Amino acid sequence: MTGRDLKELSAEDSLRLLASVPLGRVVFTRHALPAVRPVNHIVARGQIVIRSSPGTVLSAELAAFETVVAFEADDLDVEQRLGWSVVVTGVARLVEDPGEVARYKAILRPWVAGEMEQVIRIRPEIITGFELVPAPVPGETRTNDRG
Amino acid sequence: MTGRDLKELSAEDSLRLLASVPLGRVVFTRHALPAVRPVNHIVARGQIVIRSSPGTVLSAELAAFETVVAFEADDLDVEQRLGWSVVVTGVARLVEDPGEVARYKAILRPWVAGEMEQVIRIRPEIITGFELVPAPVPGETRTNDRG
Repeated sequence: MTGRDLKELSAEDSLRLLASVPLGRVVFTRHALPAVRPVNHIVARGQIVIRSSPGTVLSAELAAFETVVAFEADDLDVEQRLGWSVVVTGVARLVEDPGEVARYKAILRPWVAGEMEQVIRIRPEIITGFELVPAPVPGETRTNDRG
Repeated sequence: MTGRDLKELSAEDSLRLLASVPLGRVVFTRHALPAVRPVNHIVARGQIVIRSSPGTVLSAELAAFETVVAFEADDLDVEQRLGWSVVVTGVARLVEDPGEVARYKAILRPWVAGEMEQVIRIRPEIITGFELVPAPVPGETRTNDRG
């Protein structure tokens, strides 16, 4: 099997891929330690929207005040060594407008039983993404043929 | 469909599940911001082992000095709302013993072309994990029958 190179993705392609999967991971700091939680998400108006429950670590760290977080999603096939990963860094904020909260709750179904009353949105400030692509074989002419 | 509860996993079960998948995400701090990179990994002697290339962000942050990181892996089916997630927090260290480096390199294949000369290990200090399980239906007698 040929090797793989990392191809950088544009911000636009990165957000489009991020929106194409239901699951990502919120990365934040808790007690000065790196922390991470998987969540389901949607992308709405260029922002990442998630739900959380008051009383959870996620709500304690993200909903109480504006916090810088990272959000990562990927679709990687380790066997084939193909796929992509996207990381968005930005400020997480509690959504407070009741109409917006209701709208997001209608389309973002929680995994777990219970209220999940809080809706949090992350506004991307930095968007990076890469795709694994076949590396050129030394001495071989590169073509645009992907087959 | 019934709801889901989060069932806490033991440290032993968490590490076993973490070892059962090829891919996880290293969570660290870079320029005082939360950062995350997907990597393939193995679990050896209770520690998480990954590879990295000098010159990458991951090596710059993890290999130069001992750093506290989190490592997350999951296998979650958002449609069925079943699966698990494990987060390990611990100190990342460069593996320096040439014999160990060679042994890990033989079993941990990099995704991308190039050298990936550095082997980094994370010693778990905190291990947490959860599993999504069906929530009890109100008024229904719980049994051990999972069918």
